[in-house]
Parts: sequence; C-alpha cells; structure tokens
Amino acid sequence: MSGILFMLPNRIAERDLTETIPEGTLAHARACRYFLAENAKSARAYLKALEHPVPIAELTIVEIGHEPDPARFAEWIAPIVNGQNGCIVSESGCPGVADPGAGLVAYATERGINIKPLVGPCSILLTLMASGMNGQRFRFLGYLPIDDAERLDAIRRLEAASREPETQLFIETPYRNNRLLSALAEHLAPETRITVATDVTGNDECIRTKTAAQWRQTEPDLPKLPTVFAVLASGKSARKAVAKKPQVASPVKHGPTRRPNKSRSR
Amino acid sequence: MSGILFMLPNRIAERDLTETIPEGTLAHARACRYFLAENAKSARAYLKALEHPVPIAELTIVEIGHEPDPARFAEWIAPIVNGQNGCIVSESGCPGVADPGAGLVAYATERGINIKPLVGPCSILLTLMASGMNGQRFRFLGYLPIDDAERLDAIRRLEAASREPETQLFIETPYRNNRLLSALAEHLAPETRITVATDVTGNDECIRTKTAAQWRQTEPDLPKLPTVFAVLASGKSARKAVAKKPQVASPVKHGPTRRPNKSRSR
Repeated sequence: MSGILFMLPNRIAERDLTETIPEGTLAHARACRYFLAENAKSARAYLKALEHPVPIAELTIVEIGHEPDPARFAEWIAPIVNGQNGCIVSESGCPGVADPGAGLVAYATERGINIKPLVGPCSILLTLMASGMNGQRFRFLGYLPIDDAERLDAIRRLEAASREPETQLFIETPYRNNRLLSALAEHLAPETRITVATDVTGNDECIRTKTAAQWRQTEPDLPKLPTVFAVLASGKSARKAVAKKPQVASPVKHGPTRRPNKSRSR
Repeated sequence: MSGILFMLPNRIAERDLTETIPEGTLAHARACRYFLAENAKSARAYLKALEHPVPIAELTIVEIGHEPDPARFAEWIAPIVNGQNGCIVSESGCPGVADPGAGLVAYATERGINIKPLVGPCSILLTLMASGMNGQRFRFLGYLPIDDAERLDAIRRLEAASREPETQLFIETPYRNNRLLSALAEHLAPETRITVATDVTGNDECIRTKTAAQWRQTEPDLPKLPTVFAVLASGKSARKAVAKKPQVASPVKHGPTRRPNKSRSR
C-alpha cells in the first residue's frame, strides 16, 4: 500500500515556528523521514527548528528545486508508492501555492497516492484576510508583466475584473515593489483600493490599504521585502457585496456567494 | 491610540485545536477580550476550547451574523478605535474568506485601525495545495448558480478560464454536492481534472482528483459534508506550467508566475 504525500508548509519569516505552524503540522513533519524540498538547506533548518526526533543526517531530503524536473517525478515518488510517507516542503509558505509542488502532486495522484495538505502560513491568504476586500470571490495572478505597455494592459484588465467584485491579488520581486506601486497608483481609478502587504508574519509586517488617490499623495517607500498586492475597484457596490452574504438562492449573473450555507465548509 | 483588529481563524472540524491552529494564533486570542463573532455560540465554544484565561462570561462577544449590518459598524469598531484590541472570528475557517468580516475590516481600515491576520485553516487553500493544479494562478468563485442553464453556462466559462492555466475553485451547499459533481463530470471535457475535497481537516477528510471522464464512470457518492471543488482543463500544457517556475523574466501574455523570486514572499 502506498504512503501518504503530505504538503508541509514552512514558516514565511524567521520567527518562532509555533507562531504560524500548528502543532498538528509539526507532528506530521516529525513522523516523516522522506522530504521533497524546494531547497534542501532551508528544509534542514526547518526540520532542525521543529526538533525532528531523527538526526537530520539520517533523513532523506531530496532537493527538487524551483522547477522540479518531470523526468525525475517517478524516482522521487517511488518511496511513497512503496509505502513510505513523504512531505513536499517549500522554502517558505505553502507548497503548491505560488511555489513548486503541484506537478509532483498531480503525478502522485495519478499513481493513486493520497495527498494530505497541512495547515500553515500563506501570505496571499493572509493579505486577502487583512485587505477588507471581497473574500467571496478572489483571484491570484502571480506576477504582472515587466514590460511597461504589457504591465499597463494587465493593470487595466485586472481593475476591470475586480469590478465583479473580485479581489485581484498578485506579487512582485521585492526590488520592483515601488515601481509597481507607482504604476498602480497612477493608472488605477482614484477610488480603487490597493492593499500592500509587506513581510507578512515577519518582524517588519506592514499591511496598508488605501485608495489609488491616497497612494498617489506620497512617494512609494516600500522596503525590498516580499510583498503581496491586492486590488479592488469600487463599482457594483463592492462594499455592500463584501459585507453581504445573502440568504436567498436567487440566480444571479456571476453566480457565486449567493447561497445560504450554515456549514463548516470554509 | 487605536487597538489592533485581529482576524482570528477558527477550526473547521471539531477536532483538537492544536491540529490546525498555531499556538501564536491562540496566544493572540487569549490576550483579547473583545470578539466580533459570526456566531456567538461557536465563538464561545472556541474560546473555551482554547482555554481563554478570562471567564467566558466576562468577555465581550458580539454576534455580527452572516450578513453584518453596515449600520452597526461604527458601534462595533468603537472599542477598537478607543484603544482595545479585538478579534473578528468566523464560525469556521478564516474570517473574510468566503465568510463575513471583509466589510468590517474595510470600515476599520478607513478609521486608521491596523489589521493583523492570523494563521489558521482555510479549506479553499488546502484544497488547492492538494489538487496538484496550478498554484501560480488560481481563482475562487464562491457558489455556482443553481439554475441549470446558468450553471451550465458558468461551468463552461470556468473551464475556458482554467485553460490559462488558472485553477478554478468553488463551493456548494453540501446537499447539492452530488448534483454539482454530476454536472461537472457530464459537461467538462473528458481530460479536464476535477478535485473534490470533502470535510477538509475533519474525520472524514477525503480529497480525490480525477478527470471528468473518470468521474463519469461512477455514480457520485459524496456525503452531505462541506466540499470544495477545483477544476483545471488541460490545454496550454497545464502540467508543464504547474511544474515550472521559469528563471527568465520574459514578457508573456498573461504575465504572471514568470519571475525569478528567491524570496520569502509565499
């Protein structure tokens, strides 16, 4: 019988593990001896920090890198097919979310391996929670294009999409944070809200939400730290929509979030 | 000086808190005396389970309901404006994500209150991690329409959108799970992958990913439990895209996920 493939989140910031990683997640990591790591060095540091009961040198830590090679999936998954449990662990945050791992999971799933996702920090999700923007409908876009014309086009398209209302989230390489924020402040409608979440869960965590017009009033001063951006245009009464979760199952154009659900589904 | 407004995740399933809630999150909850709760009863049970040092009866727990009334935002936020810390806590999972709270956060932010999101379980994120689908670009749609024709239209549109490739996630009221899965299996292209994640983090957690053609082979047998669905059509070499995180910042049409980023941003 196959083992289980755990999706093991890593801390985002170099702070105490227990701040953002649940004990349940740490317990699963401690019970594993086979790790598929985005980065072997950071995985070792993480396993040491969580006080893995087995000496680190005796664990199997395979570095799969930032672009795991599909030609090696069979070899990497073999121990799990043969009954051992394994973990995919990213360098930071949740594996498979804006991080490698998804291709390996798809491969493992096709071979009948059960996947068990574990709880941990995700800067995209935390930014959404703190944004006050629509959490009934949202989208993560990864990186915007670098080329000015293409970036401008992407900014206009994401603002239009946000009027659903659908929160638009994206990231940027830290040294380009200020350039991106300037472009957003300049090109988005004055009343469109922009959330800038820097160093989420870290010592310098700073999450600010202002309208484009407000951001325009000051020169961007973002540090060169990992940052998630969120955008929501006002429009189809976005404020009302985010505050509301209607009880009547009326068919509406864009369908979602219009259903009563007294469930534990979220 | 204003207090801080914490976004406090709740457990999804009635299991030991420490399985899915980090000690850091619990510590913030224990230090708070003012709670804005989707449901007061479940908030009390949660605060009791996390062994709040103050007797529950001495805490202020305000029920904001599933559709918080904007007319009461000022009153609810007043203690925080006046310097007390507060928590928004949902009945299950992360507040503000497919749950109430966003409108209140937007209101508080406009009044200069700092928002601090805390780590906890989110069935949408966990489903994405386990799906093996594209985590570089994804979208949460809430509920699909109930009306058959509108639902079919929504299914076709989301499948088209998934070819970016962009993972499409959505939820359903539990007693309609099987009807939705049947519709997906019937109307999606045979090779389109569908993930069905039931009771995530619960005793009956079951996460399965199959193609539409495979799902069609058996009658849907989903329990009436909270379920998250994810869809990704094959198409623009979706497998390749999810396994890849290119190192070259070449401008590509849909822009994202094409950037080197050795950061802690995720």
